[in-house]
Amino acid sequence: MELKCRQGESNMASANSPARATPREWKWTPAEKTAARRAFDLALSRELDAVLCEAKERAARITDAAALWELEGWLGEQRRRIDHDFDYRYSVLPMVFASLLRSGRLTEDDLNGLAPDKLDDLRRMAH
Amino acid sequence: MELKCRQGESNMASANSPARATPREWKWTPAEKTAARRAFDLALSRELDAVLCEAKERAARITDAAALWELEGWLGEQRRRIDHDFDYRYSVLPMVFASLLRSGRLTEDDLNGLAPDKLDDLRRMAH
Repeated sequence: MELKCRQGESNMASANSPARATPREWKWTPAEKTAARRAFDLALSRELDAVLCEAKERAARITDAAALWELEGWLGEQRRRIDHDFDYRYSVLPMVFASLLRSGRLTEDDLNGLAPDKLDDLRRMAH
Repeated sequence: MELKCRQGESNMASANSPARATPREWKWTPAEKTAARRAFDLALSRELDAVLCEAKERAARITDAAALWELEGWLGEQRRRIDHDFDYRYSVLPMVFASLLRSGRLTEDDLNGLAPDKLDDLRRMAH
Protein backbone atom coordinates (compact mmCIF):
# COMPACT_ATOMS: atom_id res chain seq x y z
CA MET A 1 0.00 0.00 0.00
CA GLU A 2 2.97 2.23 0.48
CA LEU A 3 3.27 2.56 -3.28
CA LYS A 4 -0.14 4.17 -3.55
CA CYS A 5 1.07 6.93 -1.28
CA ARG A 6 4.25 7.76 -3.11
CA GLN A 7 4.35 11.37 -4.23
CA GLY A 8 4.42 12.01 -7.94
CA GLU A 9 5.06 15.26 -9.75
CA SER A 10 2.05 15.00 -12.02
CA ASN A 11 -1.38 16.42 -11.57
CA MET A 12 -2.68 13.81 -14.04
CA ALA A 13 -2.58 10.90 -11.57
CA SER A 14 -5.75 8.85 -11.35
CA ALA A 15 -8.35 9.08 -8.62
CA ASN A 16 -7.08 5.83 -7.09
CA SER A 17 -3.53 7.13 -6.68
CA PRO A 18 -3.81 10.89 -6.77
CA ALA A 19 -0.14 11.70 -6.32
CA ARG A 20 1.46 8.77 -8.14
CA ALA A 21 3.67 9.40 -11.16
CA THR A 22 1.93 8.60 -14.41
CA PRO A 23 3.59 5.89 -16.49
CA ARG A 24 4.82 8.60 -18.84
CA GLU A 25 6.79 10.08 -15.95
CA TRP A 26 8.34 6.89 -14.64
CA LYS A 27 11.99 7.06 -13.68
CA TRP A 28 13.92 4.08 -14.97
CA THR A 29 16.98 2.84 -13.07
CA PRO A 30 19.87 1.51 -15.13
CA ALA A 31 18.94 -2.04 -14.12
CA GLU A 32 15.34 -1.44 -15.15
CA LYS A 33 16.47 -0.05 -18.48
CA THR A 34 18.42 -3.25 -19.06
CA ALA A 35 15.43 -5.39 -18.12
CA ALA A 36 13.13 -3.26 -20.28
CA ARG A 37 15.39 -3.56 -23.29
CA ARG A 38 15.64 -7.32 -22.86
CA ALA A 39 11.84 -7.67 -22.65
CA PHE A 40 11.30 -5.30 -25.58
CA ASP A 41 13.75 -7.21 -27.79
CA LEU A 42 12.20 -10.51 -26.77
CA ALA A 43 8.71 -9.33 -27.71
CA LEU A 44 9.93 -7.86 -30.98
CA SER A 45 11.64 -11.10 -31.82
CA ARG A 46 8.45 -13.04 -31.10
CA GLU A 47 6.41 -10.61 -33.18
CA LEU A 48 8.77 -10.87 -36.13
CA ASP A 49 8.86 -14.65 -35.87
CA ALA A 50 5.06 -14.74 -35.95
CA VAL A 51 4.87 -12.47 -38.99
CA LEU A 52 7.60 -14.43 -40.72
CA CYS A 53 5.80 -17.71 -40.08
CA GLU A 54 2.48 -16.35 -41.32
CA ALA A 55 4.11 -14.81 -44.39
CA LYS A 56 5.56 -18.18 -45.35
CA GLU A 57 2.19 -19.84 -44.90
CA ARG A 58 0.45 -17.14 -46.94
CA ALA A 59 3.05 -17.37 -49.70
CA ALA A 60 2.73 -21.13 -49.86
CA ARG A 61 -1.07 -20.86 -50.31
CA ILE A 62 -0.93 -18.29 -53.13
CA THR A 63 -2.25 -19.43 -56.48
CA ASP A 64 -2.84 -16.21 -58.40
CA ALA A 65 -1.45 -12.73 -58.94
CA ALA A 66 -4.16 -10.98 -56.92
CA ALA A 67 -3.14 -12.96 -53.85
CA LEU A 68 0.51 -12.12 -54.55
CA TRP A 69 -0.16 -8.37 -54.41
CA GLU A 70 -2.31 -8.95 -51.33
CA LEU A 71 0.73 -10.53 -49.70
CA GLU A 72 2.77 -7.45 -50.60
CA GLY A 73 0.12 -5.20 -49.04
CA TRP A 74 -0.13 -7.38 -45.95
CA LEU A 75 3.65 -7.34 -45.47
CA GLY A 76 3.62 -3.54 -45.69
CA GLU A 77 0.86 -3.35 -43.09
CA GLN A 78 2.79 -5.64 -40.76
CA ARG A 79 5.99 -3.62 -41.20
CA ARG A 80 4.20 -0.32 -40.47
CA ARG A 81 2.31 -1.82 -37.52
CA ILE A 82 5.50 -3.18 -35.96
CA ASP A 83 7.36 0.09 -36.61
CA HIS A 84 4.53 1.93 -34.88
CA ASP A 85 3.91 -0.46 -31.99
CA PHE A 86 7.51 -1.19 -31.02
CA ASP A 87 8.44 2.28 -29.86
CA TYR A 88 11.22 2.27 -27.25
CA ARG A 89 10.84 5.87 -26.05
CA TYR A 90 10.58 5.69 -22.24
CA SER A 91 7.58 8.03 -22.36
CA VAL A 92 5.52 5.42 -24.21
CA LEU A 93 7.25 2.21 -23.11
CA PRO A 94 4.70 1.50 -20.33
CA MET A 95 1.90 1.61 -22.93
CA VAL A 96 3.94 -0.63 -25.19
CA PHE A 97 4.54 -3.17 -22.43
CA ALA A 98 0.89 -3.09 -21.34
CA SER A 99 -0.19 -3.76 -24.89
CA LEU A 100 2.33 -6.61 -25.23
CA LEU A 101 1.10 -8.15 -21.96
CA ARG A 102 -2.48 -7.88 -23.23
CA SER A 103 -1.67 -9.53 -26.55
CA GLY A 104 0.40 -12.27 -24.92
CA ARG A 105 3.64 -11.22 -26.62
CA LEU A 106 5.07 -10.71 -23.12
CA THR A 107 4.38 -12.39 -19.79
CA GLU A 108 4.93 -10.79 -16.41
CA ASP A 109 7.93 -13.07 -15.99
CA ASP A 110 9.49 -11.50 -19.07
CA LEU A 111 9.36 -8.16 -17.26
CA ASN A 112 11.36 -9.39 -14.27
CA GLY A 113 13.70 -6.66 -13.18
CA LEU A 114 11.16 -3.87 -13.22
CA ALA A 115 10.14 -2.46 -9.85
CA PRO A 116 7.00 -4.06 -8.32
CA ASP A 117 5.05 -0.78 -8.55
CA LYS A 118 5.74 -0.59 -12.27
CA LEU A 119 4.62 -4.20 -12.71
CA ASP A 120 1.44 -3.41 -10.76
CA ASP A 121 0.69 -0.49 -13.02
CA LEU A 122 1.43 -2.49 -16.16
CA ARG A 123 -0.83 -5.29 -14.98
CA ARG A 124 -3.66 -2.81 -14.45
CA MET A 125 -3.05 -1.11 -17.79
CA ALA A 126 -3.08 -4.44 -19.56
CA HIS A 127 -6.52 -5.38 -18.29
CA MET B 1 7.40 -5.81 -101.20
CA GLU B 2 4.25 -3.82 -101.61
CA LEU B 3 4.24 -3.19 -97.91
CA LYS B 4 7.58 -1.42 -98.04
CA CYS B 5 6.03 1.08 -100.40
CA ARG B 6 2.98 1.80 -98.34
CA GLN B 7 2.72 5.46 -97.59
CA GLY B 8 2.97 6.40 -93.95
CA GLU B 9 2.09 9.72 -92.45
CA SER B 10 5.24 9.96 -90.39
CA ASN B 11 8.49 11.63 -91.33
CA MET B 12 10.21 9.37 -88.78
CA ALA B 13 10.36 6.30 -91.02
CA SER B 14 13.76 4.60 -91.17
CA ALA B 15 16.24 4.93 -94.00
CA ASN B 16 15.52 1.34 -95.07
CA SER B 17 11.80 1.93 -95.56
CA PRO B 18 11.39 5.64 -95.92
CA ALA B 19 7.63 5.64 -96.38
CA ARG B 20 6.70 2.72 -94.15
CA ALA B 21 4.44 3.37 -91.18
CA THR B 22 6.35 3.38 -87.92
CA PRO B 23 5.19 0.77 -85.40
CA ARG B 24 3.51 3.54 -83.46
CA GLU B 25 1.32 4.21 -86.50
CA TRP B 26 0.37 0.63 -87.29
CA LYS B 27 -3.25 0.03 -88.18
CA TRP B 28 -4.65 -3.02 -86.46
CA THR B 29 -7.41 -5.05 -88.08
CA PRO B 30 -10.05 -6.54 -85.79
CA ALA B 31 -8.50 -10.00 -86.27
CA GLU B 32 -5.06 -8.62 -85.40
CA LYS B 33 -6.44 -6.97 -82.30
CA THR B 34 -7.82 -10.33 -81.20
CA ALA B 35 -4.48 -12.03 -81.88
CA ALA B 36 -2.61 -9.23 -80.11
CA ARG B 37 -4.83 -9.45 -77.04
CA ARG B 38 -4.39 -13.22 -76.90
CA ALA B 39 -0.59 -12.93 -77.12
CA PHE B 40 -0.50 -10.10 -74.59
CA ASP B 41 -2.60 -12.03 -72.07
CA LEU B 42 -0.49 -15.13 -72.61
CA ALA B 43 2.73 -13.24 -71.93
CA LEU B 44 1.24 -11.51 -68.89
CA SER B 45 0.10 -14.84 -67.53
CA ARG B 46 3.60 -16.29 -68.01
CA GLU B 47 5.16 -13.26 -66.36
CA LEU B 48 2.84 -13.47 -63.36
CA ASP B 49 3.42 -17.22 -63.04
CA ALA B 50 7.17 -16.62 -63.02
CA VAL B 51 6.94 -13.93 -60.35
CA LEU B 52 4.56 -16.04 -58.29
CA CYS B 53 6.90 -19.02 -58.46
CA GLU B 54 9.93 -16.93 -57.50
CA ALA B 55 8.00 -15.25 -54.67
CA LYS B 56 7.16 -18.64 -53.19
CA GLU B 57 10.78 -19.74 -53.43
CA ARG B 58 11.98 -16.50 -51.84
CA ALA B 59 9.43 -16.75 -49.04
CA ALA B 60 10.39 -20.34 -48.32
CA ARG B 61 14.08 -19.34 -47.96
CA ILE B 62 13.46 -16.44 -45.57
CA THR B 63 14.91 -16.83 -42.08
CA ASP B 64 14.92 -13.29 -40.70
CA ALA B 65 12.93 -10.08 -40.68
CA ALA B 66 15.33 -8.21 -42.96
CA ALA B 67 14.70 -10.77 -45.69
CA LEU B 68 10.96 -10.48 -45.08
CA TRP B 69 10.98 -6.73 -45.79
CA GLU B 70 13.23 -7.40 -48.77
CA LEU B 71 10.52 -9.70 -50.10
CA GLU B 72 7.98 -6.92 -49.66
CA GLY B 73 10.22 -4.51 -51.57
CA TRP B 74 10.88 -7.06 -54.30
CA LEU B 75 7.15 -7.74 -54.74
CA GLY B 76 6.52 -4.00 -55.08
CA GLU B 77 9.24 -3.74 -57.73
CA GLN B 78 7.77 -6.65 -59.66
CA ARG B 79 4.27 -5.17 -59.50
CA ARG B 80 5.47 -1.76 -60.72
CA ARG B 81 7.62 -3.34 -63.44
CA ILE B 82 4.74 -5.45 -64.74
CA ASP B 83 2.34 -2.48 -64.57
CA HIS B 84 4.82 -0.48 -66.59
CA ASP B 85 5.87 -3.13 -69.10
CA PHE B 86 2.47 -4.60 -69.89
CA ASP B 87 0.96 -1.57 -71.57
CA TYR B 88 -1.76 -2.44 -74.07
CA ARG B 89 -2.02 0.93 -75.80
CA TYR B 90 -1.69 0.24 -79.54
CA SER B 91 0.85 3.06 -79.84
CA VAL B 92 3.32 1.16 -77.67
CA LEU B 93 2.19 -2.44 -78.24
CA PRO B 94 4.85 -3.12 -80.92
CA MET B 95 7.59 -2.15 -78.43
CA VAL B 96 5.94 -4.32 -75.80
CA PHE B 97 5.82 -7.32 -78.16
CA ALA B 98 9.40 -6.77 -79.30
CA SER B 99 10.55 -6.70 -75.70
CA LEU B 100 8.57 -9.85 -74.90
CA LEU B 101 10.09 -11.64 -77.90
CA ARG B 102 13.54 -10.56 -76.75
CA SER B 103 13.00 -11.81 -73.21
CA GLY B 104 11.46 -15.08 -74.36
CA ARG B 105 8.07 -14.35 -72.78
CA LEU B 106 6.61 -14.63 -76.31
CA THR B 107 7.61 -16.67 -79.35
CA GLU B 108 6.82 -15.72 -82.92
CA ASP B 109 4.25 -18.52 -82.94
CA ASP B 110 2.43 -16.79 -80.10
CA LEU B 111 1.99 -13.79 -82.41
CA ASN B 112 0.25 -15.80 -85.13
CA GLY B 113 -2.51 -13.72 -86.60
CA LEU B 114 -0.50 -10.54 -87.03
CA ALA B 115 0.28 -9.49 -90.59
CA PRO B 116 3.66 -10.72 -91.91
CA ASP B 117 5.01 -7.17 -92.23
CA LYS B 118 4.26 -6.54 -88.56
CA LEU B 119 6.00 -9.79 -87.61
CA ASP B 120 9.00 -8.77 -89.71
CA ASP B 121 9.21 -5.45 -87.92
CA LEU B 122 8.81 -7.06 -84.49
CA ARG B 123 11.55 -9.57 -85.29
CA ARG B 124 13.89 -6.74 -86.23
CA MET B 125 12.96 -4.69 -83.19
CA ALA B 126 13.57 -7.66 -80.92
CA HIS B 127 17.14 -8.16 -82.08
